[in-house]
Amino acid sequence: MARFLDVHTGFVGGTVQQLQAAHERDIAIEKDEGMHFERAWLDPEAGKIFCLSYGPSREALMRIHERAGHPTAEVYELSIEVI
Amino acid sequence: MARFLDVHTGFVGGTVQQLQAAHERDIAIEKDEGMHFERAWLDPEAGKIFCLSYGPSREALMRIHERAGHPTAEVYELSIEVI
Repeated sequence: MARFLDVHTGFVGGTVQQLQAAHERDIAIEKDEGMHFERAWLDPEAGKIFCLSYGPSREALMRIHERAGHPTAEVYELSIEVI
Repeated sequence: MARFLDVHTGFVGGTVQQLQAAHERDIAIEKDEGMHFERAWLDPEAGKIFCLSYGPSREALMRIHERAGHPTAEVYELSIEVI
């Protein structure tokens, strides 16, 4: 399993309701690809959404986001973590 | 208190030791500004580092990173979160 951070742009002024709805569309189908989307954050001034997830591959992540209606190609594999 | 994600670029091939050392330089002085750097991640292929933190302001965060020797202007305030 790998950890990922993916980024979506163009959400200036986005709301918690919009983010919750989008996140729930991922959660509803994530098991099809063995993914889990842990958290999603929005900076409504920059219009950026960041999703923290883990799963088998970048491609699995991208397929879930695509099917959920919010594809992105900006996906980082966080192979090194410190706490 | 606000939550932040900040980004550093140019670390292709970076190691866990380098990330740990940089993170510890933040931790050592973070209380001076009331910040806490919770986690840092590196994607060594993209060369990007992401730091998740919370504290009083973007400026406080930037002062700690500046003093720790790794300034960045790419700071996102994650004012909306869903789990």
